[in-house]
Amino acid sequence: MRIIKNVLQMQKVALNHVKNGDKIGLVPTMGALHEGHSSLIAKSKKNDDITIVSIFVNPMQFVVDEDYLKYPRTIEKDVEICRKNHTDYVFVPTVNDMFSVNHKTFVEVKTLQDILCGKFRPSYFRGIVTVVVKLFNMSYADRGYFGMKDFQQFKIIEKMAKDLNFRTKIIPCPIVRERSGLAISSENYYLSIEENKASENISRILKEASKDFKVKDLNFVKESVLDKLKKIPDGKVDYAEILDFNDLSFAGKNTRKVVFAVAI
Amino acid sequence: MRIIKNVLQMQKVALNHVKNGDKIGLVPTMGALHEGHSSLIAKSKKNDDITIVSIFVNPMQFVVDEDYLKYPRTIEKDVEICRKNHTDYVFVPTVNDMFSVNHKTFVEVKTLQDILCGKFRPSYFRGIVTVVVKLFNMSYADRGYFGMKDFQQFKIIEKMAKDLNFRTKIIPCPIVRERSGLAISSENYYLSIEENKASENISRILKEASKDFKVKDLNFVKESVLDKLKKIPDGKVDYAEILDFNDLSFAGKNTRKVVFAVAI
Repeated sequence: MRIIKNVLQMQKVALNHVKNGDKIGLVPTMGALHEGHSSLIAKSKKNDDITIVSIFVNPMQFVVDEDYLKYPRTIEKDVEICRKNHTDYVFVPTVNDMFSVNHKTFVEVKTLQDILCGKFRPSYFRGIVTVVVKLFNMSYADRGYFGMKDFQQFKIIEKMAKDLNFRTKIIPCPIVRERSGLAISSENYYLSIEENKASENISRILKEASKDFKVKDLNFVKESVLDKLKKIPDGKVDYAEILDFNDLSFAGKNTRKVVFAVAI
Repeated sequence: MRIIKNVLQMQKVALNHVKNGDKIGLVPTMGALHEGHSSLIAKSKKNDDITIVSIFVNPMQFVVDEDYLKYPRTIEKDVEICRKNHTDYVFVPTVNDMFSVNHKTFVEVKTLQDILCGKFRPSYFRGIVTVVVKLFNMSYADRGYFGMKDFQQFKIIEKMAKDLNFRTKIIPCPIVRERSGLAISSENYYLSIEENKASENISRILKEASKDFKVKDLNFVKESVLDKLKKIPDGKVDYAEILDFNDLSFAGKNTRKVVFAVAI
């Protein structure tokens, strides 16, 4: 396993693999690696000749500076996890190498970026998409691996890659959960013990609702989930929407596969 | 010379050249080729192993539908010019293949896109930059050739390529002019005989001013040019600015190289 800290070096190495005919897999992360990430790496190891794990806490996707500074940084442990998962390259660029002081270019995916979490965190998805475009251009990835935990993010990146004709195929990966059912996430780190309990509760409420879809209509399912969510102590529902799995439009009677998206 | 009409086909062919170790040059055009384009193709033929000329009238960069429909289309003549200049591939994608009905992704270069022509044609540069990103992803170009005639466009694309880490190096190419001094441009096609005369006049006024820079201060040069421009019959000055050649900021005493940008 090789650790690369320099952007030009990463591009040079990756391009050599392209010339070699190797298939390249990219697992973009912000570090603080956990079992969810390990499952992405494992999937790439299975599919690709070469697996690159990038570790970069992207300042552009934080709305509040404090959150950026507080984001967990566990680089030594991360490198160890990459090694255990037989990663070929760990790419750890510096902020200065990633973004020039005078950075001016942004990539936006209209509509998709403005709903759900985008409504509450303006420029959040723009920050993510822009850095992903850069990482694609640094890694020449044939496949990029994204967890379905961040479903809106996955959909936005999938749309961007298609619209801009990136050679990179976006591979959605199943959510890895704690025993409680809560999705494993580096961001759970921000939660107090009470908030963590509440999060497990949300996860349970949604799981229960998933059975209702077969027998009840969408509106009934939505309202009954909302009723339960509103009972969570100190909770304020930002949104609770049942959407088409394919394009995140509002689900209707004829929608074949839905996603229930909730933020509290 | 091979003509390619399909996006996936273009990507496949270009990727094979990358694997071969060939250096790829891209000359992106909207067709209606003239001597300016020929000079770009010649430059690529000199620098690169493979020269791709793309011909695509980009609907996204027209503010008025009518202009899009009226834009000169001379594909047979264009192909002939490409052949004469020893182009390797002419890439002529269809609109439907370039843009899905549901296209949502846009690339923006803040600040640079909002000044000069960007002020008067909102979303114009966004349309150009977005299609250029797509063409880079279709051609895997090592070098992209852009005429300095469209100076703001060249600067914006240069900035985008750097900010997003495209492997494509942006090569600026000298303006090719008619005998009158007017830059050769497919868009001159829109001009009436009177407007064409006026354009030649603008070109002459700027050429005269270029001598003044050595002896007069910037403000004097600007004002004396403005005086002359205002005398052009039926002319309305949109802007006349002396800018830093490097970043299009306003030029000052210490600016070493300037560009005088005028729109009427």
